[in-house]
Amino acid sequence: MEKKRTVGIVGLGLIGGSMAVDLRARGYASCFIGTDKNPLNAEAACRLGLVDRVASLEECIEECDVIVVSVPVSAAAGILHTVLDTFNEKGFTDKIVMDVCSTKSQIAERLKYHPCRKRYVASHPMAGTEHSGPWAAMPGLFDGRACIIADREESDASAVRAVEELYKTLNMRIVYMTSDSHDVHTAYVSHLSHVSSFALALTVLDKERDEKHIFDLASGGFSSTVRLAKSGADMWVPIFTQNRDNLLRVMDTYIEKMQEFRKAVEDFDEEKIRALIDEANRIKKIIR
Amino acid sequence: MEKKRTVGIVGLGLIGGSMAVDLRARGYASCFIGTDKNPLNAEAACRLGLVDRVASLEECIEECDVIVVSVPVSAAAGILHTVLDTFNEKGFTDKIVMDVCSTKSQIAERLKYHPCRKRYVASHPMAGTEHSGPWAAMPGLFDGRACIIADREESDASAVRAVEELYKTLNMRIVYMTSDSHDVHTAYVSHLSHVSSFALALTVLDKERDEKHIFDLASGGFSSTVRLAKSGADMWVPIFTQNRDNLLRVMDTYIEKMQEFRKAVEDFDEEKIRALIDEANRIKKIIR
Repeated sequence: MEKKRTVGIVGLGLIGGSMAVDLRARGYASCFIGTDKNPLNAEAACRLGLVDRVASLEECIEECDVIVVSVPVSAAAGILHTVLDTFNEKGFTDKIVMDVCSTKSQIAERLKYHPCRKRYVASHPMAGTEHSGPWAAMPGLFDGRACIIADREESDASAVRAVEELYKTLNMRIVYMTSDSHDVHTAYVSHLSHVSSFALALTVLDKERDEKHIFDLASGGFSSTVRLAKSGADMWVPIFTQNRDNLLRVMDTYIEKMQEFRKAVEDFDEEKIRALIDEANRIKKIIR
Repeated sequence: MEKKRTVGIVGLGLIGGSMAVDLRARGYASCFIGTDKNPLNAEAACRLGLVDRVASLEECIEECDVIVVSVPVSAAAGILHTVLDTFNEKGFTDKIVMDVCSTKSQIAERLKYHPCRKRYVASHPMAGTEHSGPWAAMPGLFDGRACIIADREESDASAVRAVEELYKTLNMRIVYMTSDSHDVHTAYVSHLSHVSSFALALTVLDKERDEKHIFDLASGGFSSTVRLAKSGADMWVPIFTQNRDNLLRVMDTYIEKMQEFRKAVEDFDEEKIRALIDEANRIKKIIR
């Protein structure tokens, strides 16, 4: 009979909580211990049955085989460092710690020379909603989505295998790349979407003093484009600053495209507008 | 027993086709006659059962009580004019023609002094998908969405009532405003969403030469923000040029907001980024 794992969830929000739900239901582990610096989140996660009990970070490290660090990116490197320090001090050679952060290079840099670096697996499951907190946790959040495992060769093969098994249990497609490459691609495919959505909300809120008009006229198109603007600052401020250089490059290209579009509209240049739309339509072949 | 109406659908695409589906199912009319300058669309609409038969525009006008003009905005004014001319020549005083266009001011201007202006009701049901053509027609497309009736006082009360009944059959919330006001508000709430989505697709396609990365990494967030970039040029080029002045103003504000955001990221100004995100989050209270 297989030994049943105990999983620790450090940071009981949407991602950590949703992982616990499916990992439990699908038998990846038999026991889930949670920790959160916010006692309200911790209590809610217990009451919602996301974790079996709440403990301190120290107890979590002591008792768990796999520790999932699912906190905002600004706090992750510090916690990962503490966990690896404890592995080192206590001689834990079989435990695994992983993160789920939306930025990877700064964390990789910070942990690069840690003596227990090989027991850390860097990952980023690309799933989420605009909601946050343990109340937002939901089953099936990760099904069919992509998950990046970064710098695979920096981790022990056994640690990578356990994390791959975890993500396969969540029904994710695993993609491998370096941390640097991850940060370039997510700037395009994820971070820019959020900035453009925030800017859209800011524009409409700024100009439409009468909120009733926004409410009355919001079509499905506006709602889907502005959805990400509901995402919270706690998560996104550190992502934007940690991925600053890539994000600035991407925003510059985006602003250029907007200005190109603007000029075509200003000039009544129907041929140019049509060419831009036709080109943009190519996204249909890539995103179903 | 109530006399059953005959409805004419001029332009058998997503909007006209979806209207026919629900108006038939919900008993607004007993017979639907369609016309489309593209014989493929006309044939498909017949085969799909959207309309009972296809006819020329002249026959449509002759036989129908309510004529829905659901063609791209560049073609609408001309067709509406022809329909009203026919009403005039043939002395049709009870028939109604309505459009569903996403821009209203130019059309209003063009028809303002027509002797049969009062038999025309200007409207814009704010619903749609990124797909087009009769194959994209679907039941329930309009349920719960907003529909604008513009310049109500320019139409006969009896004509407005019939159009209101049509939109109530489609389960839409009716909002009244002037054509000019419509074009200002839709520039914010609809047209800008499309431009920002086109620009997002253009940016990602431009920079991500390797389409596999886009496919692999596209999260739900990116997919929802870029969805409108699948919308076709035939519909959107004339909307952007007809609503040019409003759209340029809105795009200028949007580009300013992007630049404000960019500067905050460049300066590592976490407080400013947080303030922008918090402000954008206000959209949560307005859009569920």
